[in-house]
Amino acid sequence: METEKKFSVPDTIAVLSRTPAILNALLRGLPETWVSSNEGGQTWNAFDILHHLILGEQTDWMARVQIILEYGERRTFDPFDRLPESVRNGGESMEQLLDDFARLRGENLIALATLSLQPADLVRKGVHPAFGVVTLSQLLATWMVHDMTHLHQVSRVMACQYRDAVGPWSAYLGVLTAAGG
Amino acid sequence: METEKKFSVPDTIAVLSRTPAILNALLRGLPETWVSSNEGGQTWNAFDILHHLILGEQTDWMARVQIILEYGERRTFDPFDRLPESVRNGGESMEQLLDDFARLRGENLIALATLSLQPADLVRKGVHPAFGVVTLSQLLATWMVHDMTHLHQVSRVMACQYRDAVGPWSAYLGVLTAAGG
Repeated sequence: METEKKFSVPDTIAVLSRTPAILNALLRGLPETWVSSNEGGQTWNAFDILHHLILGEQTDWMARVQIILEYGERRTFDPFDRLPESVRNGGESMEQLLDDFARLRGENLIALATLSLQPADLVRKGVHPAFGVVTLSQLLATWMVHDMTHLHQVSRVMACQYRDAVGPWSAYLGVLTAAGG
Repeated sequence: METEKKFSVPDTIAVLSRTPAILNALLRGLPETWVSSNEGGQTWNAFDILHHLILGEQTDWMARVQIILEYGERRTFDPFDRLPESVRNGGESMEQLLDDFARLRGENLIALATLSLQPADLVRKGVHPAFGVVTLSQLLATWMVHDMTHLHQVSRVMACQYRDAVGPWSAYLGVLTAAGG
């Protein structure tokens, strides 16, 4: 079976465009205890994860696409602050955060489509502040995988609230013992 | 912050009732390559995961609830075959599988609500073929965590298709390196 695929802009957009509806189905109207609980200590709860995804839409993904297209390797990407404390404690409701994320993602995907990226664009290069040279296709693939990372995280955060409640079944339930990520 | 919650029937149903819509938002109409690819070898793709979830609705979760309520510790649960080869290769479309799962889950949640479980019911006991004595609340908590396990798995399977495409960003993307589960 195929276990890895080549990068494709339409396939990437197919996932990116679904993430707001996935998070909406999972989190909208869910009892407070599921969305406000975390994995202990300073780990993130669902509110933190939404704030972080919104920041990515506002300051990270498309901003970096634009830097690659305009400046290439002449301008290093701005560092991305994953979750400033001021944002983390903004007090928005989950419904507001889901609405904001859906709107921003929609706007960004329209902006991406408007670029009409060609194969030659996908190998254009930019400079990441930590990794050095990266390509546009790597940036877009990361945007999609990053969504999956946080969907993975939300499902793990929720599952771990029942770590004790499942009793002996915890031995079978991989999500309760998965490495952080 | 709270990091673990006590078992609650309404909170559990709140999640169980959402899973079909979550999977629908994620998988319906998604390009074939995302849903038919796995993590290598005999690991599961999205079709396998849906088949497995459907089997759970048909033969596992509510069947075990009924065994606990009718027989208690006098009858061991039937073993659950996670994914018989005959089922795995049934040839159904993803749309059909999503529809089947949503219908079966809906029927099971109606059956669960009809039981009007009381606190005294939740501590009633059954016998798992591998673990021995378990309680009804542990079974119901496991049903919910099991959903999260497979949501977690689907997001991981999809993300790993871009393991190479993300280039150096793989260092930041936990889902690409998470333990199996």
